[in-house]
Order: sequence, then C-alpha cells, then structure tokens
Amino acid sequence: MRFAERMGRVAPSAIRDLLRHGADPELISFGGGYPDPALFPAAELNEVYAELLTGNRAALQYCPSNGLAALREHVAKRLAGDGIDCAADDVLIIQGAQQGLDLAGKLMIDPGDTVVTENPTFLGALIAFNPFEPAYAPVRTDSDGMDMADLERVLSETPRARLLYTVPDYQNPTGITLSLDRRRRLIELANSYDLLVVEDTPYRELRFDGAALPSLASLDTEGRVLHLGTFSKILAPGMRLGWAVASTEIVEKLTLLKLAADTQTSTLNMAAAALFLDRFDLDAHIRTARAAYAHKRDVMLAALREHFPDTVSFTVPRGGLFTWLTFPAGFDTAAFMADVALPRARVAYVPGATFFPGAPQHNHARLNFSGLSDDRIVEGITRLSAAL
Amino acid sequence: MRFAERMGRVAPSAIRDLLRHGADPELISFGGGYPDPALFPAAELNEVYAELLTGNRAALQYCPSNGLAALREHVAKRLAGDGIDCAADDVLIIQGAQQGLDLAGKLMIDPGDTVVTENPTFLGALIAFNPFEPAYAPVRTDSDGMDMADLERVLSETPRARLLYTVPDYQNPTGITLSLDRRRRLIELANSYDLLVVEDTPYRELRFDGAALPSLASLDTEGRVLHLGTFSKILAPGMRLGWAVASTEIVEKLTLLKLAADTQTSTLNMAAAALFLDRFDLDAHIRTARAAYAHKRDVMLAALREHFPDTVSFTVPRGGLFTWLTFPAGFDTAAFMADVALPRARVAYVPGATFFPGAPQHNHARLNFSGLSDDRIVEGITRLSAAL
Repeated sequence: MRFAERMGRVAPSAIRDLLRHGADPELISFGGGYPDPALFPAAELNEVYAELLTGNRAALQYCPSNGLAALREHVAKRLAGDGIDCAADDVLIIQGAQQGLDLAGKLMIDPGDTVVTENPTFLGALIAFNPFEPAYAPVRTDSDGMDMADLERVLSETPRARLLYTVPDYQNPTGITLSLDRRRRLIELANSYDLLVVEDTPYRELRFDGAALPSLASLDTEGRVLHLGTFSKILAPGMRLGWAVASTEIVEKLTLLKLAADTQTSTLNMAAAALFLDRFDLDAHIRTARAAYAHKRDVMLAALREHFPDTVSFTVPRGGLFTWLTFPAGFDTAAFMADVALPRARVAYVPGATFFPGAPQHNHARLNFSGLSDDRIVEGITRLSAAL
Repeated sequence: MRFAERMGRVAPSAIRDLLRHGADPELISFGGGYPDPALFPAAELNEVYAELLTGNRAALQYCPSNGLAALREHVAKRLAGDGIDCAADDVLIIQGAQQGLDLAGKLMIDPGDTVVTENPTFLGALIAFNPFEPAYAPVRTDSDGMDMADLERVLSETPRARLLYTVPDYQNPTGITLSLDRRRRLIELANSYDLLVVEDTPYRELRFDGAALPSLASLDTEGRVLHLGTFSKILAPGMRLGWAVASTEIVEKLTLLKLAADTQTSTLNMAAAALFLDRFDLDAHIRTARAAYAHKRDVMLAALREHFPDTVSFTVPRGGLFTWLTFPAGFDTAAFMADVALPRARVAYVPGATFFPGAPQHNHARLNFSGLSDDRIVEGITRLSAAL
C-alpha cells in the first residue's frame, strides 16, 4: 500500500521489546522501571474504589478534561509544600508523566526544532518527541548532572533550541542528581535563550538520603518551567495518573491538547486517588517505599561490588530506581545481551546505547533495582557476572 | 515570553466551554455526549474491581502498551461476531476512541495534507487532527450519509488527500447512517485514491431499530480501514477504554505511538473490563441501553414535534445519542444560544457551525438525548421553544 510509506518515521523501541520479554517468568529483568508491587496499597485502594462504585456513579461518567478538581487540589497542595507556587487550576491531570512529554512536544516542536537533553537521557522522552521530528542537542553530563558550560556552548550554537528536557532528580538512566548551583544556572540560561524547560520528576519523592534540592519549577522566574510528575512510582502505575504544572498560559494550551489527545484521564482513577489522599497518609506510604528501594539499591550495589570485575563502574543513586553501569571501552552491552545475557544467563537490562540522542556509547547498561525481590536481584547479578 | 508565540496554533474549543457549563446544576444541557449514568453497571463493576484489588496486584502494575491480552481477546471476539476478520493481536486498547484519532493523525498527517470528512463532522476529530495542521475537504452529506459523487469529485481535485474520517453509524452530529451501497463505493474510492479510512464507531452498538449495516472494516479489501470503537457508551466513559483494529502493519505503528503518547491505558480499568466481560452479559446490558436511549429519542422528538415551529426540522436517528436541528436560513444558533438560550432559558446545545471543517452553516444545532431524564428533556425543549 502506498500510504504505508508514510509510516516509516515510526520506529520500534527497545522499551517495547523489553516489555515483551517481561512475559517470560524464567527471565530476571533489570530492564523495566517497575515499582515493587508488594508496596501497592491494594487494601486501601480497594476501600476507595468500593466507596466510589457504590456511590453516586459520577466516577464512571465523563468529567472536565483538565481533571477532577479534588485531585488537582491535592496535587497543588503537595507541590506547594515542595516549594512550587501553584493552585489547583495550575494543575492538569495527565495519563502518567509520559503524556506530558507528548503534549509538550505537540505544543512546542516543529520539524527541525531542537530539543536539548542530558546525554544520556530518558528513552521515553525521545520516543515521545520523535513523531514531531526534532533535532536533538545532547549536553555533556557528569556526576552533578548536565554540565552548564557545555549547555551554554550548545545553546549558543543552536538557534532553533526550543525545549530543554531534564530529569533533575535521580535521573533516568544514570541515577544522577543535578546540583543546586547548576539548577540556578540552568534557569538563567533558559531565560537568556528563551527555552521551555520540561522538568520531569518521576523519582523526586523516592529520595534515599540527603535533603531534597529545590525543583526547577520552584526556581523558575519567568513561567517557563513545565513541571511533570506522576503517581506511578508512589501509588500505582496501573492507575495511569500524572500531573503537569506550569504557567496559566501553558496549562491552558496543554489542557486543549489533552482534550484533543484522549478527552480526559479516567474519572474513576482520578476519583480514587483523590479519595485515597483524603483518607490515607501518602507521605507515610512514600517513606515506606523509600526505605524499601534504598534497601534494594544497597542489595544491588553490594552484589555488583562482590561479583563484578573492577573494570565495570556504576553510579550510586541517592534515590530513584536505576543504577548506570559503565563497561570498558569497546565492550558492547547490546551485543552481550543478545548473544549471552538473554540466551545463557536469562538476564535482561537496557543496553545504554538507546539512551543517547546523538552518537551512541555502547559500553553502558541501565539496571533497575526497584521491581525485583532481594533474592532475584542477587541471583540476576550473580548470573550476569558469571556470563561476563 | 517569546516562545509562547508558538502556541497560537492551539485554539479553544466549543466542547470544552460546554463541559464548563456542565457544572451549573440549573442548566439543562443538550450539549454533551454523555451516556445516562443510571445505566452504568456499577454493582457489577464494584464486584470486579474488588476482586482485582484483593488479587495478585498485577492490575496495579504496568503492562504491555498494546493492552491486556484478556481484554484484546474479548474485543476481537466481539468484532469478529460483527463481521470483522480479526484476532486479539490485531487489537490495540486505547484511552477512548478519541485517542485513536490522535494516533491516526500523528501517523498519517503532515502539515498541508488533506483530511476528507463528512460535512458536518465530529468536532472531536477536528480537534484531534488540528495540531498536525491538515487541510480539510468536507464532503456533501444527505440522509444516507456522505454523497459518493461528491466524494469522488473531492478526491479527484485533492492530490494530498491522505485520510478519510467517517462516523458511518448514527453520525455525530447528525445522527445519520451511511447506506450500504455507499459503504461499498467508499471502499472502492479509498482503494483507488490510496486513502487510510478511519471508521469511528462509538454509537454502532446503540441501534434502536433496523438491522446493523456491515462496518467499513468488514468490507475492507486492502487493509486500509482503521476501525475505532469504545466502551464509553456501552459500559462507562469514566473508565476511558476504547479500541483500534487495523492491519498488522498499522496496529504495529499505532502501538509504538501509543507507547510514546502515554505508555499504556490503565491496567486496572482494562482488567476490570475484561473481568466484567468474563462474568457478565454485556450484550444484555446493551439491549437495555438501546431500549432506554430509543425511548429518550422518542421523548425528545415528540417534544420537538409538539413545541417547535414547523420551520425547524430535525433528523430521526435510528441509533446513537444525537438529533440535528435545522433552523430557517439566516437564523444563527450560536448567537441565539449566547443571547437567549443560555441566559434566559438556561438551556445549552452545541451550535452547528462548529462541526463544519470548511465554511460554517450557522442555522443548525446538535441536541443530545441520552444523558438526561425524560422530565429534563421535555422541560429543556419546552423552555427552548418558549425562548424561540
């Protein structure tokens, strides 16, 4: 069919391939970004869904496309407590933070516009932006996050830079956190170069140690930060609930695009999250999750230290779900996974090359520690090291 | 802010304004496309959500982006029973049929490509396609749907026609059904002119009388029909569950775009719909809904006949949620709503002009009969006619 030629711009993704492997029970996958299902507050959610489904049926009907007011109020209150100056009307409820990337791309990117990202960056953001056909300008990243001198160089050389995408807290894939000085500098540069800053914070509340650094939204001086967050990692991803917070003008536009994209997020799931937040202590639940994931991180890093050769280094994330491994130059983690790790060790991870918007580096791997039991983590790392 | 200039292409919509009015309890709104909440099977849904939330927690976790296999199997089986040759792997679960329009637009439309539609057409489709900056070629429509001679003329004059969008059954906004001869001819023309046909069927199962006509997907000879459907009108819109069915090649591409857009639809809601379909008789529920909506249509049409002047004509839909009113030439339904109907009669409808992709006709109105009680329907029509 001739029209099918037009579909060539849609290319398969490594994430989807991994989700498919996820169906094999023998496989130990460090590939996903799954929270631990043991932490889902299922009994509490059962209580709130039962209350809604025996109630006035409004939770099964349509509702306004920006989302239920009760949930927007809860989100605004939580973000205000985190230093972001916002009210319920500044909040748009979205279908996970991922939808915020799609809507931001639709709003801001014309073909050939440039998206500035950390190098490496979140694969899901590249997948979301790609249909709008941007160019990418990746910025050098070290243990304090995006290098501001390199960002300034990139911006000065990139007249069509429109949007800067960043995961400042416990980044995906590296687990690295952007330092406070750099956060301030990033806002200055965004002001100078007229960028929309998309601050993606899926892991922000999963902090293992240290104090929280101010979000970019809280440092924003000109209403140019679009702050995205999600209940996926602190409540349950199967509810598909996230939020976008920005200036009135931006939220207004994103709400129209949300209406165009899927009418609204599930009324029932929004009502359930709002009632959960009325009734239960989400912060106490988050404290439990933090301790659990900090422990899993420790289990994974201890196993890596014990079993892996010294030539493989890894980040020590202070929060989030991932550590980032660096193998010796010349080692190809994608080839190793296809030829050895999957067929022989039955272990999966995400080969690092896929996270580089520009020239790929082949000697990295992203490992998730949140979604597996301690035993499976140790078993998987042991199997991998034996295969190495 | 300079970057804000780029956001001008996102324009407010009449639908959203109406959703806002929906919060006024005094208002009688014929504006929405709401199903009757009294029909939602809340007790049955309560049972399935409770079972899922006391179960193995998988319903709260991520799942593959094409949707839960159990639900895809149910959808495929229902569609196969309706004459569409498909299996579970040909089904993509989406966030309401609206998301299918967004994904189809993203897949097929480059700026300046032409989308062919009925004239008038579903406003939500225009909103979904607009961000991709198409031109529109509206086709003359009569009481048998799109006029095939006019469609052929339009296609012969429109080299960049890529996508034909149609609601063949009980169309939104007119309530009109495309005849069988025209369905066959539409497929022939789509083959000749290399179009993707987007067949949107939100009302197909809400048939009041007569036999169902074959869907365009069941008449498709070259795998160029994208068939969209939804549980919103037959189960509950607050669950946000729809489906897209097409050739393997198209479903594969749409699944990648779904992953990019929002990762996946709510696992919990998909699992609940699948369990509902295992456990309860959706067809019996649909029969109840058909009878209820046929009755509401009769109540509305009887009130129109009794109270409205003969100079106002209306369609007699054989299914769906809407009738379409035609006022005398020169009457402006938008001005009448703003100046009289809303402030004095406290009645809303959707002024017809908004449904025309090209030159608007100002003397039409779309009235919904599904979402209100009999009393409110009669009261609203009486108030409107008094204000006329």
